[in-house]
Amino acid sequence: MSIMEMSHRGKEFDAVIKKAESDLRRLLAIPDDDYAVLFLQGGATTQFAAVPLNLCAPGDAVDYVVTGSWGDKAFKEAQKFCKANLIWSGKSDKYTKIPSFEGLEQNPNAKYLHICANETIHGVEFKNYPTPSNKDAVLVADMSSNFCSKPVDVSKFGVIYAGAQKNVGPSGVTIVIVRKDLIGNAQPITPVMLDYKIHADSASLYNTPPCFAIYICGLVFEDLLEQGGLVEVEKNNTKKAGILYDAIDGSDGFYVCPVEKSVRSLMNVPFTLQKSDLEKKFIEEAAKEGMVQLKGHRSVGGVRASIYNAMPLAGVGKLVAFMKDFQARHP
Amino acid sequence: MSIMEMSHRGKEFDAVIKKAESDLRRLLAIPDDDYAVLFLQGGATTQFAAVPLNLCAPGDAVDYVVTGSWGDKAFKEAQKFCKANLIWSGKSDKYTKIPSFEGLEQNPNAKYLHICANETIHGVEFKNYPTPSNKDAVLVADMSSNFCSKPVDVSKFGVIYAGAQKNVGPSGVTIVIVRKDLIGNAQPITPVMLDYKIHADSASLYNTPPCFAIYICGLVFEDLLEQGGLVEVEKNNTKKAGILYDAIDGSDGFYVCPVEKSVRSLMNVPFTLQKSDLEKKFIEEAAKEGMVQLKGHRSVGGVRASIYNAMPLAGVGKLVAFMKDFQARHP
Repeated sequence: MSIMEMSHRGKEFDAVIKKAESDLRRLLAIPDDDYAVLFLQGGATTQFAAVPLNLCAPGDAVDYVVTGSWGDKAFKEAQKFCKANLIWSGKSDKYTKIPSFEGLEQNPNAKYLHICANETIHGVEFKNYPTPSNKDAVLVADMSSNFCSKPVDVSKFGVIYAGAQKNVGPSGVTIVIVRKDLIGNAQPITPVMLDYKIHADSASLYNTPPCFAIYICGLVFEDLLEQGGLVEVEKNNTKKAGILYDAIDGSDGFYVCPVEKSVRSLMNVPFTLQKSDLEKKFIEEAAKEGMVQLKGHRSVGGVRASIYNAMPLAGVGKLVAFMKDFQARHP
Repeated sequence: MSIMEMSHRGKEFDAVIKKAESDLRRLLAIPDDDYAVLFLQGGATTQFAAVPLNLCAPGDAVDYVVTGSWGDKAFKEAQKFCKANLIWSGKSDKYTKIPSFEGLEQNPNAKYLHICANETIHGVEFKNYPTPSNKDAVLVADMSSNFCSKPVDVSKFGVIYAGAQKNVGPSGVTIVIVRKDLIGNAQPITPVMLDYKIHADSASLYNTPPCFAIYICGLVFEDLLEQGGLVEVEKNNTKKAGILYDAIDGSDGFYVCPVEKSVRSLMNVPFTLQKSDLEKKFIEEAAKEGMVQLKGHRSVGGVRASIYNAMPLAGVGKLVAFMKDFQARHP
């Protein structure tokens, strides 16, 4: 019987989900007593609503720092459920920056401060994290596109959430790590499926979970532990990204990455060609050599290399070699 | 590259989801012009909230006929978002009946009438469907556990929704068939992921969908069409269920099915042993012969044989033979 045929109430699947949770706790050093780990559905987009619904009452203030499209979507969704303030936006700089934390004007009564740790489309990544100025507030992060790509000090966060489909599993499962004392105060209008208490109380088995996706996540967590944990994973990701950014910066302007150097993503490397009319050809020729999905997101264009955990160093090496060759052929 | 590695924005996955939708439309004869077909996440439990959020304003009246645990959950969730009325409940009869439609006291202003077409735990199935008395109201059905087990006249419904995991795919995808004129009036507090308009406008690709689960659903739809469509599927299911109910009814009371004969489910066959102390032994011995997951739902106990589309006639035959043998050994 395959994992897809088993009852999610059986002891076999129970062992699968418990092992997945326990391996994730080891990977991220998540304290058992203080944080719940939930395997949910609906992607980060569902969490854009679940976070305000669980963490604040309708009139409460919350703060959003928006460094790209995903943070912007989270901010807009929160406005339905509380008084969401946009305290910083990188939009006028085309989302190429992270603000200085000292300059952030946080609301003194904000219940939480929300960031998107890595902006998939714009390639902007937080390298460290702001602290909420209100000592009762918590930091909340959407880590969908850099989850398990490097170690994270979970104790700095009230909620971390991540769609699994970038680094840890197939699409269809969303992981939420939430500080236990924040659970249990959902607004009365919270749908059952968005209520952290329902899922925490039933260990993510309130209704039928996405069993197969959770099973695959568990295998990936095992593999990441075998690789030496997230310290090793980060080393590898740093090396991969370094080679690619060096190739861009060393191209005498043939390739251009618009993102500020100190906040460039280890996961998503967006760049343009100075001669923008060559971009289509670049993407087509790369595809012929087996390098696909290099087109920038439809909202920004250009080229984007997403080099998640699963991309080997050799894959990045091949791309860099192709970039140099392409440049040589188009002087 | 596997389906799990592809971008959901690529032409490969686009072909997969379009083919799945088109095959489902053929299977259920869903009119293209009048109904949207959505592939969503979060199970029927998410739809328990989405239905009232999309179909009515906070003060609107809606009617629920509750014939089992799932209908009861749907009713309770709806109370958060509108004035939900329980117009009939089978609870006092331990959920073994379906009401006569003539006797239903529907609210004249109800926006919809909600039923659960097949109660998975109690084994009670609607064989035909009530009509809302208010001509502007629509019928809404949770078909999670009998979806694609028989033909359904979709035009009688405003909304049909179904978690896929019983008959058509792995857990993690929920199919919603919704009449197009009902889309676009969601309450302002509706989370984006519960808003039918968002998903209809983007052909179920607003955010990353559960690609693998949708792919498998597509394969199942192809298979059901090859079997001759739902008329043939129903014939097979009727034969399977008939053999099992006959064995129960012909056991001189050794086995007892509490459900009223005219509304017994073709999918879930719950029964008890007159000598209830033998149930544990029955389930253990069946497991030794490879027949597992026969334990009744933890909320009701007893035995339950779930004989979804994928269960072959021979599987039911084997169970019936075992039942007769077990009875002979326990006179």
